[in-house]
Amino acid sequence: MALYQATASAPVNIACIKYWGKRDTALILPTNSSLSVTLSQDHLRSTTSSRADASFAQGDRLWLNGKEEEIKAGGRTATCLAALRKWRKEVEEGDASEPKMSEWPLRIASYNNFPTAAGLASSASGLAALVASVSQLYQLPQTPSELSLIARQGSGSACRSLFGGFVAWRMGARDDGADSLAVQVAPREHWPEMHALICVVSDAKKGTSSTSGMQKTVATSTLLQHRIKHVVPQRMDEIERAIAERDFDAFAKLTMRDSNSFHAVCLDTEPPIFYLNDVSRAIIAVVEELNRASVAQGNGLVAAYTFDAGPNAVIYTLEANMPLIVNTINEYFPQTQAFPDPFKMLDKAHIAKPEGFNPAVVREGGWEKGAVSRLIHTTVGDGPRRLGDEESLLNESGEPKTLA
Amino acid sequence: MALYQATASAPVNIACIKYWGKRDTALILPTNSSLSVTLSQDHLRSTTSSRADASFAQGDRLWLNGKEEEIKAGGRTATCLAALRKWRKEVEEGDASEPKMSEWPLRIASYNNFPTAAGLASSASGLAALVASVSQLYQLPQTPSELSLIARQGSGSACRSLFGGFVAWRMGARDDGADSLAVQVAPREHWPEMHALICVVSDAKKGTSSTSGMQKTVATSTLLQHRIKHVVPQRMDEIERAIAERDFDAFAKLTMRDSNSFHAVCLDTEPPIFYLNDVSRAIIAVVEELNRASVAQGNGLVAAYTFDAGPNAVIYTLEANMPLIVNTINEYFPQTQAFPDPFKMLDKAHIAKPEGFNPAVVREGGWEKGAVSRLIHTTVGDGPRRLGDEESLLNESGEPKTLA
Repeated sequence: MALYQATASAPVNIACIKYWGKRDTALILPTNSSLSVTLSQDHLRSTTSSRADASFAQGDRLWLNGKEEEIKAGGRTATCLAALRKWRKEVEEGDASEPKMSEWPLRIASYNNFPTAAGLASSASGLAALVASVSQLYQLPQTPSELSLIARQGSGSACRSLFGGFVAWRMGARDDGADSLAVQVAPREHWPEMHALICVVSDAKKGTSSTSGMQKTVATSTLLQHRIKHVVPQRMDEIERAIAERDFDAFAKLTMRDSNSFHAVCLDTEPPIFYLNDVSRAIIAVVEELNRASVAQGNGLVAAYTFDAGPNAVIYTLEANMPLIVNTINEYFPQTQAFPDPFKMLDKAHIAKPEGFNPAVVREGGWEKGAVSRLIHTTVGDGPRRLGDEESLLNESGEPKTLA
Repeated sequence: MALYQATASAPVNIACIKYWGKRDTALILPTNSSLSVTLSQDHLRSTTSSRADASFAQGDRLWLNGKEEEIKAGGRTATCLAALRKWRKEVEEGDASEPKMSEWPLRIASYNNFPTAAGLASSASGLAALVASVSQLYQLPQTPSELSLIARQGSGSACRSLFGGFVAWRMGARDDGADSLAVQVAPREHWPEMHALICVVSDAKKGTSSTSGMQKTVATSTLLQHRIKHVVPQRMDEIERAIAERDFDAFAKLTMRDSNSFHAVCLDTEPPIFYLNDVSRAIIAVVEELNRASVAQGNGLVAAYTFDAGPNAVIYTLEANMPLIVNTINEYFPQTQAFPDPFKMLDKAHIAKPEGFNPAVVREGGWEKGAVSRLIHTTVGDGPRRLGDEESLLNESGEPKTLA
């Protein structure tokens, strides 16, 4: 008897133009469009296996990193699974020979290859992997953009993880959300030199969750509406042009501006929301000073920082500048965890900072070890991958395998 | 022979609705109106003595805290002195018996009773004391609002230090600045229960000066114009009403909102400007949590924080709530300098925090000693004072006395 199962992996994405604010919290419709870079699954990924079987006990079951999570009726996961089943039903109605998987219970196991403690948003890659896996299991004919409508309802920014490369989430105009979906602006092959360095910043305190934080901003910020209506639409046009032209200077400027604009509206929230801490600010100061000194020498910007709803920095830079970035960050922010250095940046000859770089922008002697706990070096990457059954996370009885 | 001299003191003011941005940098015309509370000169003041004497060597001379400062031609101090001389000239032309002081050299000595290291803006009180002193020396008939036109050109927010109580700086509309002046919204006697606690926060790094910072914001922020045109005008109306009605809840909400809005547009500047550090953020968290817990108990807000262009917090609260504020700040932010406690707040019986206060908003055990170096407790205060000759800072030869 055939085993109906599929295993998929999906990437993390980090926005350059930020999503912050919902106009519909049930359908997860955003107040503005956003744009992200998909990061390589070689380094960061969520993997999800799903299986449908008529013999399973009634009710879907889900495990995250080996721990069972309740699928709440009416919750986001249930909403996604219901939508996927509806499309599966259409497949079955169109071809009577198709197994009636839409009626069978599901078993789903998901695993992130990066620790939650790293403070990296796992909901985007996790939901994208779930949608990719179940859509493969169900052999759905829908396009990634169509699937992104479902991922969006699981976790807004998950819709962008259904593509590789450079991805826009069009906010759409319809009340039912049918036009609020992700599209690929450019594949990774268009600009493979785009690299990213994630600086995991320690934070004593747990910050405000993005789900509750963004709605507080929508409800109380006097600046958000201006950002939404006037600032972001122009930036979306500009950054898409920058990507099309592989114009790193424009890309970097827009990315830094929009990160700062996003944190500005967080600060303008009542009570104010702070995600950046003193270490985040110091990373900003270092990148700004590298850029300032480089431009003063007649060269272009070397890097762009961006921060999501937490203190971790993601530094985008072109491959040629990554040795400079890695060495500079290492100098001022010694880490507690050894840097795996997948691209052998530390082997490069000493990279001089641009002449005129002012070390006084960082406190003398740099930061104490562990203020940045670890670095992750990765690149722009591809979209969800279909994996073989040998990589399934489910054992014969449809429960999660014990991972070594 | 008569000695022509005058000594005046002037207060510090701390804005509730912030001045940030000039539409004319030479005349110091702001992009928005602002409103401040004048703090008591019993605790913080600048004192200035000025003397005019035909026998002085040519050229005006100025000493700040005993150190001579050059009066640059075309500079701000020279501009103020020229404007004051012009009005003195009108006095002399109206009455031939008046001594021709407008033609005589000036000797001016100014002294702040608070250390520059405290990070408190001394330019506002300093320029106001200079204008008050010279206008007294010259026996000018102009009103404080008219004098504020001159103080404004020395240091924008100095214009607000020419009044006690609650003071608005009307931005005005004219290109020559003749209507950009300060007016008293309410005298201190209207709401004498208004107290302030200044928390001097240590900062490793020198921040961006407000003069250069605000013009960077004007040039690059995409949110500032919205703040200027739509947010501040409404807040000015609302806070004047709150003061008129002695409505502390409204006053506190508007003060905190506007501080956060100001720091938000700083963050939205390119490169971003950060004045708040982790200690500033922790003070915000404590005040917000005291307020939240108080409101949850059915009571009003207990305090409002506000931050100028630096990490120091100024906490406004009504006298009745100051014991709670002092004790709570003491608990989480032990200082290196003993608190002088001029109003005997530490003698009060232990003040319980509102029920439900969550201590987890601050890191466990509070901050290390000295994160807040000292506290200054003061109240709303009066405007510039005329002091007797016995308090003159100038000796017989027109040079600064050596202060004990």
